[in-house]
Amino acid sequence: MVQDDNIIALATASGVGAIAVLRISGKQAIEMASGVFKSIHGKQLTDQKTHTVHLGHIMDSERVIDEVLVTVFKNPHSYTGENVVEISCHGSSFIQQEILQLFLRRGCRMAQPGEFTLRAFLNGKLDLSQAEAVADLIASDNEASHKLAMSQMRGGFSNEIAKLREELLNFASLIELELDFAEEDVEFADRTQFKDLVERILFVLKRLIDSFAVGNVIKNGIPVAIVGEPNVGKSTLLNALLNEERAIVSDIAGTTRDTIEDEISIGGIGFRFIDTAGIRETEDVVESIGIKKTFEKIEQAQVVIFLADGLQLKNVNYLKGFQVEIEKIKNKYPQKPIIIIANKVDMLSEAEIESITSEIEQVHLLSAKTGFGVEALTDKLLNLINTGALRNNETIVTNTRHYDALLKAMEEMQKVKYGLDSGLSGDLMAIDIREALYHFGEITGQVTNDELLGNIFANFCIGK
Amino acid sequence: MVQDDNIIALATASGVGAIAVLRISGKQAIEMASGVFKSIHGKQLTDQKTHTVHLGHIMDSERVIDEVLVTVFKNPHSYTGENVVEISCHGSSFIQQEILQLFLRRGCRMAQPGEFTLRAFLNGKLDLSQAEAVADLIASDNEASHKLAMSQMRGGFSNEIAKLREELLNFASLIELELDFAEEDVEFADRTQFKDLVERILFVLKRLIDSFAVGNVIKNGIPVAIVGEPNVGKSTLLNALLNEERAIVSDIAGTTRDTIEDEISIGGIGFRFIDTAGIRETEDVVESIGIKKTFEKIEQAQVVIFLADGLQLKNVNYLKGFQVEIEKIKNKYPQKPIIIIANKVDMLSEAEIESITSEIEQVHLLSAKTGFGVEALTDKLLNLINTGALRNNETIVTNTRHYDALLKAMEEMQKVKYGLDSGLSGDLMAIDIREALYHFGEITGQVTNDELLGNIFANFCIGK
Repeated sequence: MVQDDNIIALATASGVGAIAVLRISGKQAIEMASGVFKSIHGKQLTDQKTHTVHLGHIMDSERVIDEVLVTVFKNPHSYTGENVVEISCHGSSFIQQEILQLFLRRGCRMAQPGEFTLRAFLNGKLDLSQAEAVADLIASDNEASHKLAMSQMRGGFSNEIAKLREELLNFASLIELELDFAEEDVEFADRTQFKDLVERILFVLKRLIDSFAVGNVIKNGIPVAIVGEPNVGKSTLLNALLNEERAIVSDIAGTTRDTIEDEISIGGIGFRFIDTAGIRETEDVVESIGIKKTFEKIEQAQVVIFLADGLQLKNVNYLKGFQVEIEKIKNKYPQKPIIIIANKVDMLSEAEIESITSEIEQVHLLSAKTGFGVEALTDKLLNLINTGALRNNETIVTNTRHYDALLKAMEEMQKVKYGLDSGLSGDLMAIDIREALYHFGEITGQVTNDELLGNIFANFCIGK
Repeated sequence: MVQDDNIIALATASGVGAIAVLRISGKQAIEMASGVFKSIHGKQLTDQKTHTVHLGHIMDSERVIDEVLVTVFKNPHSYTGENVVEISCHGSSFIQQEILQLFLRRGCRMAQPGEFTLRAFLNGKLDLSQAEAVADLIASDNEASHKLAMSQMRGGFSNEIAKLREELLNFASLIELELDFAEEDVEFADRTQFKDLVERILFVLKRLIDSFAVGNVIKNGIPVAIVGEPNVGKSTLLNALLNEERAIVSDIAGTTRDTIEDEISIGGIGFRFIDTAGIRETEDVVESIGIKKTFEKIEQAQVVIFLADGLQLKNVNYLKGFQVEIEKIKNKYPQKPIIIIANKVDMLSEAEIESITSEIEQVHLLSAKTGFGVEALTDKLLNLINTGALRNNETIVTNTRHYDALLKAMEEMQKVKYGLDSGLSGDLMAIDIREALYHFGEITGQVTNDELLGNIFANFCIGK
């Protein structure tokens, strides 16, 4: 990973805004900026202190490109740890491009996706898990995912891993010390104490690994399939939940032929609601494809909302059919939480409602139109997610790469435990411990390689 | 115009980027930011110098919203002339919103469109014509419009107006001095000298007013209608000009039924190419609507490109029909520059080409497919625009409001000239001069009112 050149990228969102910020990082960043910057007050950028802002013009020889503010950050007091210049220009695409081109002509290189953060990692400003959290933070669009990314970026997860690693390192060095004195058959490492330690590490690993289930859904949103026959009010419910009109709402049965997906934040957690075409038996080919899609969506969903038209439930035959359908889904997906909803209750009498609640177990009464029962529904949804860990500020794993490394570390630690239990020789145990340490190191970046880094930072946006 | 409150807005383009910048302006801007900012180094924002940058966290009581860089600008050394704080945060929409909401809860107000620039104007940091140029600069998407906006923002136009105004003011005060001594019948203002001055002012006004013709097209792009029968290669030509595949290109005659418009920058000037459905007589209703649209587009265009298929021109009857169509357009729009193009010349023999050039006056030979003649065509287009003023760095008027004010000033100045020529009494002339001064003042903002300001700044984006 060569990093002795100077890179530039647009750091703000693309498109037209009041201002845009271009970021330049590298040994010559300040000299380069100084060469095209004419200060209003006749100052030289190269003479300025770190963390200072200067008004002037970006010049392409005699041509004024823009009046800008230039901020100077001096190595190592910058995001990347290198010399950094940020140019805050007027936000026209033309000006952004002109300044970019000017620096490219003068020897700067377009930054790769995530290259500023990569440099920050390589210069020791962040560990790898913190660097990954930067991308998560930028992608976060609700309170829970934001909280997790922020905690990870601030080193919460790294600290947890570092603690485990340190304890394990002590363990390892004592075991390896024994190897040096192998002929004397001494035991520096108290086996009982170490058994406790290994148990403790396994416990923490299990907690972290288990946290991924919730971490993953928080990061990616919880998929909820809304299932029901056409015209029972799925789209209206979706809109009531979304508080906006994104899905097609109409009175023609079978309108929603393609699945529509939208995410809303409930209690700070992102839910991805997937409107489906229902599972009504039909001869219409397009409709049948819709039903097939519905089952696929149920498969992918973490929660299923099964919706019926309360007015139709008054009909006994219809009610029986609905109960059959519920059983069908329950049998097919026994583990999946299902919320059964009778919609349009605003149009039912009390007696009618009573008969529905007595016939259908745990039915949720709702009127998507008036909003009755919508809040109770969101409460139910929230209760399905175990947010205890989130509330208790425990470390939650959200990253698949970390999850994989933890699983591997777990595997090695179980080997260590087995070795301890079966009185395995120290040299063999040391190998397993080293392997576990390796996987811990993968998370924070003590162990890494170019390919891994390439994969990680390729998912960043350019400019970060 | 009350401006004693504190305003906030996102200053960068909306959407997700590596970073986003929020801008706060007002008397309490720094105190407000200080109240939610926890410096990494334990610094108080309120104690910091102007134009300095500080790393820390934006806190909602105990909750960390983001790690940010905060820049402090102190009154009057800021864009608005007030205390200004810029918060550079991670570019997630969620974080942008959280920080915005936090400041709104603490008493900030969402800025109106252009309100930062309005404050800059009210605080004397810019005159009105310069303030208007800020919006033009952000909207500029090619070299010419950028150059005009930049020159206006840097005060080029204001200086020109200020000079006229000053000379006229001298004139006015001498005339008015005469009024004070009216009974003594003195002439402080040498009528011959003033006649010269009035002539000079009229000359400059005329130049500025005339410049609007070119300024307006540079600002808004020059509309060029590409006209021709279906399948002659209009879309291919458009693509050759655009260097990209935005228009539909296919071999089915009549594919381009809706007009497609796209802008490209040629020699730094924006041309809006309008692809039309041609003017071939047809019985197809949809096609006929297209033809009607074609004529509408020709009406709006500043230049017409009339395109024929070179292969079809080999047919004598077709050639005659084409010549009739050319005459039709020439007769209908005698003033409009028309470029007649024979396309697909790569598929013609030299003899065939010779016969076409002898039959059609000033025909432009082109192969949109191979690119032959495309550059010569762009040269022709550039020559149609009188860019002399642009090249000579003369002041060019681009703003309709300024143009109107100049026309009114011209009218008043002509009255003054008539008054001078006919020996009108000083008091009557003074009125006309005052009127002219009023219209000059409208341009730079010495004369203004809330409604006018409201109209001007409503066209800005929020955050500027």
